[in-house]
Amino acid sequence: MRNKRFTIVGGGPVGALLAITLARHGYTVGLYEGRPDSRTTNIYQGRSINIALSDRGWSSLAAIGVSAEAKAQAVPMHHRAIHALDGELSQIAYGRDDQSIWSVSRGGINQQLLCTAEQEAGVTTHFEHRLVDVDFDTATTRFVTPGGDTVEVEADYVFAADGANSKVRRLAQERPRFSYNVEYMPESYIELNIPCHDDGSFRLEKNALHIWPRGKFMLIALPNPNGSFTCTLFLNQSGDVSFDALKTAEQVGDFFVANFADAMPHLEAPVETFLARRPAPLYLVQVRPWSFNNTVALIGDAAHAIVPYYGQGMNCGFEDCAALHHLIEEFDHDWEQIFPAYEAARRPNGDAIAELAKRNFVEMSDLSGDPQFQLRKQIEALFSERYPDVWTPLYSLVTFRPDIPYAEALRLGDIQDSIMNEVMALPDIENQWREPAVFSYLHQLATARLIDA
Amino acid sequence: MRNKRFTIVGGGPVGALLAITLARHGYTVGLYEGRPDSRTTNIYQGRSINIALSDRGWSSLAAIGVSAEAKAQAVPMHHRAIHALDGELSQIAYGRDDQSIWSVSRGGINQQLLCTAEQEAGVTTHFEHRLVDVDFDTATTRFVTPGGDTVEVEADYVFAADGANSKVRRLAQERPRFSYNVEYMPESYIELNIPCHDDGSFRLEKNALHIWPRGKFMLIALPNPNGSFTCTLFLNQSGDVSFDALKTAEQVGDFFVANFADAMPHLEAPVETFLARRPAPLYLVQVRPWSFNNTVALIGDAAHAIVPYYGQGMNCGFEDCAALHHLIEEFDHDWEQIFPAYEAARRPNGDAIAELAKRNFVEMSDLSGDPQFQLRKQIEALFSERYPDVWTPLYSLVTFRPDIPYAEALRLGDIQDSIMNEVMALPDIENQWREPAVFSYLHQLATARLIDA
Repeated sequence: MRNKRFTIVGGGPVGALLAITLARHGYTVGLYEGRPDSRTTNIYQGRSINIALSDRGWSSLAAIGVSAEAKAQAVPMHHRAIHALDGELSQIAYGRDDQSIWSVSRGGINQQLLCTAEQEAGVTTHFEHRLVDVDFDTATTRFVTPGGDTVEVEADYVFAADGANSKVRRLAQERPRFSYNVEYMPESYIELNIPCHDDGSFRLEKNALHIWPRGKFMLIALPNPNGSFTCTLFLNQSGDVSFDALKTAEQVGDFFVANFADAMPHLEAPVETFLARRPAPLYLVQVRPWSFNNTVALIGDAAHAIVPYYGQGMNCGFEDCAALHHLIEEFDHDWEQIFPAYEAARRPNGDAIAELAKRNFVEMSDLSGDPQFQLRKQIEALFSERYPDVWTPLYSLVTFRPDIPYAEALRLGDIQDSIMNEVMALPDIENQWREPAVFSYLHQLATARLIDA
Repeated sequence: MRNKRFTIVGGGPVGALLAITLARHGYTVGLYEGRPDSRTTNIYQGRSINIALSDRGWSSLAAIGVSAEAKAQAVPMHHRAIHALDGELSQIAYGRDDQSIWSVSRGGINQQLLCTAEQEAGVTTHFEHRLVDVDFDTATTRFVTPGGDTVEVEADYVFAADGANSKVRRLAQERPRFSYNVEYMPESYIELNIPCHDDGSFRLEKNALHIWPRGKFMLIALPNPNGSFTCTLFLNQSGDVSFDALKTAEQVGDFFVANFADAMPHLEAPVETFLARRPAPLYLVQVRPWSFNNTVALIGDAAHAIVPYYGQGMNCGFEDCAALHHLIEEFDHDWEQIFPAYEAARRPNGDAIAELAKRNFVEMSDLSGDPQFQLRKQIEALFSERYPDVWTPLYSLVTFRPDIPYAEALRLGDIQDSIMNEVMALPDIENQWREPAVFSYLHQLATARLIDA
């Protein structure tokens, strides 16, 4: 049974982790990546070089038996550091004092996972192998090498971990009855850089995710271990204030000074970078099915590309791998059962985090905006502090509770939302919200709908 | 201004009607169709040869100045003829006594529109021209002829009326920021035939849409002017009772006898046809944007392929044409304004009818099923009869009220639904529903939410 061969298409973090997962279960695994080996070339130039990992990611790595090294390189972020328009700074904690999300080098974790795959798990890796075709019946794949040769690879099963723009998924679009949804957001993004001080120290508070929330757009900054910050500007592609509308150095300069004045002394050539870079689109992808003939399956962004506003993309991909790890045990290597069970377990959660991530743009970009919204969050936070068994804020459900699937977090979040709508509609809530009557009303609604239901 | 040239890709009913619309406004129109001319070859073999047209379709044709001939060939259907499992027949009217939907020959109306386009409107038609490429900036299209020649066609604007599987739309998928959703239904369909009697008369009641509603699947039959009925069997592709599960002549025969006994004497070789035909998938397509550079735009099924359960597909495509007709007048031929206005006006309605059509499968296939569902419809119908100004059933809004856009019908339908949920939750509603108190409660909810709101 275990001498089955797997081809994994895509050698990013999810592909590498899946390779480790399968190899540790005794399978023969070949990992094929179109780009050069990131350990010998810098392929992440101009792309997101750090990603957020949180408890789902860590616990998935731990379940598979990979963890300590990546966390040692990661920078914990305890809270959001909110930069108001006038430069005033405030903090909003991510969770309890002992809870953080982590800024992780995408290249670093990828390289660590590739080394583990090769050295500890016996995976064979093949870089600069660009997929051209996959046979969804026989699991035979064909790749083109830099020399132009075509290599045909036979296997028993194929996993496509080839990312948001998955070639395998695009080939699957030609198959009968394949449903797919590609939805572009109004926003695009560019990356900017805040370098470290000359002495290597951080120019902004290290252990925070910095946000300049401006309603319709926002700038964020995540710390890197080397003292720099990777910044991302999210801005509408077109419209009044947009990438399309900001065309000259003067317009861009005015835009930055007006909106991100306190960041200007730190940002590395923001105006030149803005004008030189082509904004990258943000989109989400949802497909059905995720697996074909119990032979070829999608995983990670190839199955569920989402927008980055919840910092959950890679966490979700790692959870996919951990789910397979558990299903291999549960079904004792019977892939006729594992493929359908994998899709049944993971697709609803992929759909849920897609929805949650989409919604979270408003949450992030409005953090210092609408006072009603802020009051709502404040009431929730205080209530949750007093009654932690009754109310865990949605953000914490998603980020710090790997035991609660995304789909369940979304369901609970919607109930919380309806409860808070009723609380916010109470007369004079702005002044009355600390009154015991408000909290007892909230407690009554919450126990009825969240606990007893 | 008016010596602009339009290329229309696709010579089906919507393409032909659009050609007439544009030509009557003074434009030079070339119509290109990949298939042979349906007037000289039978290209509809095995495909849906009749379609439902209702008031939206007729009023759109009338607005453009095309109507009488098509209606003269159409067969009005006053009601649904429901065939119960035991063969018992019942009727459910579509609307008021003077309201019908119409069974129209797809080939017939297409041919009529093509003749009008060529002879009255001066459109040039080019059959067996298969589109291979479109330039979304210059409106240049390239076609391949049966001889293998490539023809390059220059124009100022292009409309893609090339149907649910639109090649133009698939080319647009390669463009940046093009959102698309293709969703397959669990059901597939095959067509069956009920021929006329030897004397040319109908074997079933002529002026009805016949339905054998069986919950998870259904058979329907639409009358043709020649005395035959075109039947469509909608059945899950896979699962317990499905196309995949019914494999042998015995299984298929048992299935038909058990479910459609009263149709068996009439159907032409249903078992053989079932086994010989490959079921066609049912899917819907939604995209954004519908137009590109104010130069190329999608229309009809190319822009909004829907499932057939509301009989609205061609009505919606004809409405697209009528909307353009009005916008050309409103914006006095300024296409920089017409394209965005067209998309703004029609996309929400395309999305709405897609949703309505999807939901209507349950409505149609459950017609003789769930008693609660039947009671609900009965209450609605009686209430609407008594208070026609307060309540028009959703089916009538969609079918008989071209003045109410699909999106508005969907919105009103959802409000009606929430009202009926509350009515159906009244104690002992099964026995109390004719009581004045129930109707006054319903009236109160309806005026508050539908009229005053």
